[in-house]
Amino acid sequence: MATSLTALLHGPDKPGIVARTAGWIFQNGGNILHADQHCDSGAGVFIQRIEWIPAPGREPDVDASEFRQFAASLGMDVKTARSTDRPKVAVLVSRQGHAFHDLMLRWRAGELPCEIVFVASNHDTWGDASRQHYHTPFHHIPVGPDPASKAAAEEKLGALVRENGIKLLVMARYMQVLSGAFLEKCPAPVINIHHSFLPAFAGAKPYHQAHARGVKLIGATAHYATPVLDAGPIIHQAVAPVTHRQSVDDLVRLGQDLEKQVLARAVRWHLENRVLAYGNKTVVFE
Amino acid sequence: MATSLTALLHGPDKPGIVARTAGWIFQNGGNILHADQHCDSGAGVFIQRIEWIPAPGREPDVDASEFRQFAASLGMDVKTARSTDRPKVAVLVSRQGHAFHDLMLRWRAGELPCEIVFVASNHDTWGDASRQHYHTPFHHIPVGPDPASKAAAEEKLGALVRENGIKLLVMARYMQVLSGAFLEKCPAPVINIHHSFLPAFAGAKPYHQAHARGVKLIGATAHYATPVLDAGPIIHQAVAPVTHRQSVDDLVRLGQDLEKQVLARAVRWHLENRVLAYGNKTVVFE
Amino acid sequence: MATSLTALLHGPDKPGIVARTAGWIFQNGGNILHADQHCDSGAGVFIQRIEWIPAPGREPDVDASEFRQFAASLGMDVKTARSTDRPKVAVLVSRQGHAFHDLMLRWRAGELPCEIVFVASNHDTWGDASRQHYHTPFHHIPVGPDPASKAAAEEKLGALVRENGIKLLVMARYMQVLSGAFLEKCPAPVINIHHSFLPAFAGAKPYHQAHARGVKLIGATAHYATPVLDAGPIIHQAVAPVTHRQSVDDLVRLGQDLEKQVLARAVRWHLENRVLAYGNKTVVFE
Amino acid sequence: MATSLTALLHGPDKPGIVARTAGWIFQNGGNILHADQHCDSGAGVFIQRIEWIPAPGREPDVDASEFRQFAASLGMDVKTARSTDRPKVAVLVSRQGHAFHDLMLRWRAGELPCEIVFVASNHDTWGDASRQHYHTPFHHIPVGPDPASKAAAEEKLGALVRENGIKLLVMARYMQVLSGAFLEKCPAPVINIHHSFLPAFAGAKPYHQAHARGVKLIGATAHYATPVLDAGPIIHQAVAPVTHRQSVDDLVRLGQDLEKQVLARAVRWHLENRVLAYGNKTVVFE
Repeated sequence: MATSLTALLHGPDKPGIVARTAGWIFQNGGNILHADQHCDSGAGVFIQRIEWIPAPGREPDVDASEFRQFAASLGMDVKTARSTDRPKVAVLVSRQGHAFHDLMLRWRAGELPCEIVFVASNHDTWGDASRQHYHTPFHHIPVGPDPASKAAAEEKLGALVRENGIKLLVMARYMQVLSGAFLEKCPAPVINIHHSFLPAFAGAKPYHQAHARGVKLIGATAHYATPVLDAGPIIHQAVAPVTHRQSVDDLVRLGQDLEKQVLARAVRWHLENRVLAYGNKTVVFE
Repeated sequence: MATSLTALLHGPDKPGIVARTAGWIFQNGGNILHADQHCDSGAGVFIQRIEWIPAPGREPDVDASEFRQFAASLGMDVKTARSTDRPKVAVLVSRQGHAFHDLMLRWRAGELPCEIVFVASNHDTWGDASRQHYHTPFHHIPVGPDPASKAAAEEKLGALVRENGIKLLVMARYMQVLSGAFLEKCPAPVINIHHSFLPAFAGAKPYHQAHARGVKLIGATAHYATPVLDAGPIIHQAVAPVTHRQSVDDLVRLGQDLEKQVLARAVRWHLENRVLAYGNKTVVFE
Repeated sequence: MATSLTALLHGPDKPGIVARTAGWIFQNGGNILHADQHCDSGAGVFIQRIEWIPAPGREPDVDASEFRQFAASLGMDVKTARSTDRPKVAVLVSRQGHAFHDLMLRWRAGELPCEIVFVASNHDTWGDASRQHYHTPFHHIPVGPDPASKAAAEEKLGALVRENGIKLLVMARYMQVLSGAFLEKCPAPVINIHHSFLPAFAGAKPYHQAHARGVKLIGATAHYATPVLDAGPIIHQAVAPVTHRQSVDDLVRLGQDLEKQVLARAVRWHLENRVLAYGNKTVVFE
Repeated sequence: MATSLTALLHGPDKPGIVARTAGWIFQNGGNILHADQHCDSGAGVFIQRIEWIPAPGREPDVDASEFRQFAASLGMDVKTARSTDRPKVAVLVSRQGHAFHDLMLRWRAGELPCEIVFVASNHDTWGDASRQHYHTPFHHIPVGPDPASKAAAEEKLGALVRENGIKLLVMARYMQVLSGAFLEKCPAPVINIHHSFLPAFAGAKPYHQAHARGVKLIGATAHYATPVLDAGPIIHQAVAPVTHRQSVDDLVRLGQDLEKQVLARAVRWHLENRVLAYGNKTVVFE
């Protein structure tokens, strides 16, 4: 199957953008597979995702580069990707392994179009599994209680991210808060999974909070991590019903199924160039 | 079909309560239809719902009264009801009629085992529908912006509740906050429907809040109203997925379907003696 | 707000259609609000829904007519609608009124962009409600057990449909099977709600079938009626969990909530020109 | 924490069973933790699950044995289990590993109270993973196209089941139909996961069937395998929404998430003695 290109554009709304981008592709011999757009009329922002196969014989990278120039001439920010791209991803995990195993198995089964380059953890619980079962380098980066230890750990993680050319960091129940300083310098976006339906029960121990409040639904939320804890743009959310019968332990267990699915879906959408974060929201072109 | 009795008990947990209550009913010739219980081991509270048909020839009210004495001797608070009971209910509504019509139609279709004795509203929007279509008295109780007007309206509503022997008040999108003073004196519990998945987006304009935060699910919550706004024991919750495409108006429309279902289910469960509120939670014996 | 136009196109897939339709609108001064398309590569069919505001001063009907000519020149079947259109709809109901009331109330609340011109029924159960509460003409068309009675009833219904210029017929739990002869001659599409997740439990008494089979989910399906019973193109489906505790009566009651929502959503999507049936499937541009 | 006992009883309904079983436990010094029952009034069958902690100092096995005698004297079939039991389980898998990995990981994480004694497969795809990652014996039992090969494979599998004292067989997307002859002789129940919402799309290639029919929901069903293919008692079902955009490959991928969750939940409920199959249905005491 031919390589396709995907472009994700956004910029000030004005008439004719749909026609112009489609027209450019058509005039350059491309065949549009999908095109979807959204206009946030309140914010005056136009957002589009368009996927096409370049003209036969035309080099995809050249086509992508020329499209980016064209989109820029329309005042649009634009990001392109080839269907054959496998961006480099790093996975962070702590002691609880459900989201980590789920991601690694989906990746190995071909469900996530990326290359998982390393796994890092503040514990060594999953070192053997990473290396032997998933054939992926593992970095144990302990984090002590003192600020200096945390800063050193973030320094080490940041170096690994830069050295490996990481394009996406996934916190698969990594139980350390990444500092604002780290996130601001980090060259790759960070997707985190929070174990509640944000904005309810932000912060620590959300299942305990949910149990104490007596809610009848528990949830999970995948979002881009930002310096404000648990307040970044939401990519995906799901919930499951619970009753008075469920203990906190039951909520944890039931919630893990949500966490796995919500995180995997958010990561997949991101890798497929389907998610655009702007302001404190996302547009997800499913 | 014979009249059955339902008892809802709660009190300090101790061994043998399940055997004793079942044993009492059996020894008195009753036939147990359902029995369900829950032990909140953290709080040390035992809660049971048991439904039975008294012995042939035995007067249900006598059976219920003697059971209550027996349960009290075990240290249990107990509330009984007959399957033929039709408790008196009042419905409060404002301008938006979806939850009001939904309740009235379900009641007329025989789905809610109660008698809706009157409808009250701060607007007269639904007066004709109440009287002519649902054959139910309607009271227009305007509420002005000043505290005195609000106090007078609550005074009038309270008098109607007492005079009519109301056993349950249902706020079917009644857009006035009932004061703590009113709720404390009100002889009947009050069920409210909030248009968000509490505790997220408590307070005013939850769909606007949800849209601004960019959540991917909207919800509705039925709870017992308490003096702390939107913080009472939760009876039922449901959610629906939304995307960036939905405007605030769309969220309102989609949310109304949730509100109707969640409120109707909570009211039905309450009327069937299935809900026990304790602390700030509920046990719902579905 | 300005009148917008919606076009629903389909035809043989070929490169450039997205660019050409968008280009036509742009060159004629229109402003595209939404555009969505789908290519069924197996069937080689291209399907698009596009919504735009014509150039200021340009008559919408003229713009629509010229667009249809243009689309036809591309080999596309096309149907256009104005955002201000209110197509004429007839509702069919039998004794069970839940879906009927739900549709009428949504219509009265402004949720369904149509004009409900008459209600017809094989029973007179809902005559007063139609006329007095919803101010809509009601036709009682009894159907006897003999084929002649059924044929006469369909004759009468067909005449009403034609005389009133009906554009959509909605079977809101109308418990008569419309014959193939009727459906083939009927000038308007017919949406039916079936009370199971088709293709499971097609035919009569689906809740009884579901109870007997011991399924853990019940469902409802809105589809276009075709001469093959319960086999037409599916527009929307939803399910709800059930357990061994639910009797057939409980399934009926729980299912009614599904039926109402699924039917209302299907009717709304159809009215908004979002549904294209081709082969035995639908594309729904949500 | 003390060992608890669980009893699952069923037999002809008659008054007093709830009181008698609870009374027996109380009189023998036991403390009831949970008790739930169901009466299928159509079939005249009473079903109960009751969990209790025997009197201090009393041997659980003795208590269980005496309870079984007592229940038998009431005309009840009864099965008891200790909370410390870890029944022996065998897992069958073919080439697709998602359900297999999911079960093994949940088991390793302590979520499934059992001992997975061996994995068997008609392919050797997951041999290394079984042995090295999950430390579980793996048996490769090829199945050829001829009936003799199939019979020999079933012979070999049956021998393994008997030799290892297997109490439950789980078909984790094992793509061979187990013959009626095998199932009738098999000393352990067999749980299978079917990749559709049965009874829709029974048999082969259900996702292809679903795609061809144009359904808007796909599902998965866990059931006990019986000699009639895909017609055994249903334990659990779940669905997910799909649209025209999803290809058959997408349905497969989305469905795998359903399959994993539905199968894991069914296996867990079975292991916790929560599922009673009678007639062609199940009662699941969640």
